[in-house]
Amino acid sequence: MKTEELSPVAQERRSEEDFIALLRMQGARYHNLHPFHVRMDAGTLTHEELQRWVINRYYYQRSIPVKDAAILSNCPEVDVRRVWIQRIIDHDGAEPQSGGIESWLRLGEALGVDRDTLESEEHVLPGVRYAVDAYITFCRTRPWIEAVAASLTELFGPSAIKVRLDALERHYPWIDSAGFEYFRARLHQAPRDADYALGLVVERSETRADQDRAAAALAFKCDLLWAQLEAIEHGDTRPPA
Amino acid sequence: MKTEELSPVAQERRSEEDFIALLRMQGARYHNLHPFHVRMDAGTLTHEELQRWVINRYYYQRSIPVKDAAILSNCPEVDVRRVWIQRIIDHDGAEPQSGGIESWLRLGEALGVDRDTLESEEHVLPGVRYAVDAYITFCRTRPWIEAVAASLTELFGPSAIKVRLDALERHYPWIDSAGFEYFRARLHQAPRDADYALGLVVERSETRADQDRAAAALAFKCDLLWAQLEAIEHGDTRPPA
Repeated sequence: MKTEELSPVAQERRSEEDFIALLRMQGARYHNLHPFHVRMDAGTLTHEELQRWVINRYYYQRSIPVKDAAILSNCPEVDVRRVWIQRIIDHDGAEPQSGGIESWLRLGEALGVDRDTLESEEHVLPGVRYAVDAYITFCRTRPWIEAVAASLTELFGPSAIKVRLDALERHYPWIDSAGFEYFRARLHQAPRDADYALGLVVERSETRADQDRAAAALAFKCDLLWAQLEAIEHGDTRPPA
Repeated sequence: MKTEELSPVAQERRSEEDFIALLRMQGARYHNLHPFHVRMDAGTLTHEELQRWVINRYYYQRSIPVKDAAILSNCPEVDVRRVWIQRIIDHDGAEPQSGGIESWLRLGEALGVDRDTLESEEHVLPGVRYAVDAYITFCRTRPWIEAVAASLTELFGPSAIKVRLDALERHYPWIDSAGFEYFRARLHQAPRDADYALGLVVERSETRADQDRAAAALAFKCDLLWAQLEAIEHGDTRPPA
């Protein structure tokens, strides 16, 4: 291995196939494998844990269009922006009372958390804030194609969402399944988004160093989702204020 | 005057009427009053001057969706983003070969500048770059409501555009008037955008200091447009490379 790493050949641009395999490998750390999601899928989360999850992940949800706007703002290419902007519309909604953030608020309501509590962000854990804010900062400050690569967790999302949807409906019958609209929408949005982003990242990663940076961006994003769930699992361990 | 300035009364929040008047006053430095635009409207610009203008202002045009995305990315309010995003769509186009940037490329072609030359940005003057980049930086780094206030030059745009459209058609008959689509679209987009932005700035400027910052943002924007035109009027004064 060491010899191969040192040889100049090893530093050549990977084939498209190898590069895509490298990106897909990052899924080995996707947060669906975190004990908290494993327990969610197994049906053993408590009502309080599900509420903690929906409250904290709201902070992530409401940050998605902000990070996508950061990508738009860093991208000088009209053709890319014209496609990417759909992500903002999907989350913010084309009309009032529509879109992914609204759907997440409804999921909160289905879990017994009213929207004022969600929107207040009062119960968002510091560890969740730091993880999500790190993502926003990444998308604001790194080259836009790296932020696009970070979005490729959507390669792993749909299959995890299929399992999660099924588990939520089966194991937690007290949740009004109208609340799951967010996940149902993502089942068709995420593959479309991931396809486009993957094509772009493969095309624009012209050197092995570009490919390495893209894989690192995706690993960073997996870390963020993992750290977020880690904080959610631990809950608020601070002494009372 | 001095006594009034020092009295605490003078530091109270301005009435809505006075604040709007203060914002409108900034129009006294709007770039339609710059000698270059005055000459454009009088029909005395040369072909080369018009080409220099279209080439350099392309840099501003192509930066508009980038700055609007920066505003989106800084704005935590879904309702505001849902309206503001239309500006990006107007400039980038909902479909390929549409939108304000495309219309500007066609204006360039009507003026005898091919789109490759425009898109290369090769002939963009340093002074134009600095002015436009200062605007992008402003919108990236200042509170989003100040960037919204900076957009209020659109209060002054439509009447200037009406005069300009008429002048371009009358004085420069060699320009194919299909090239003026950009200005025709702005005649209905700008008043809609300015109305919304003005309402937002008036509502969100809760203190006199907020109002002062909004007026300063608009003055800054007028300065940028003026500086841009100043650089365009002077042209390239550098010794040959």
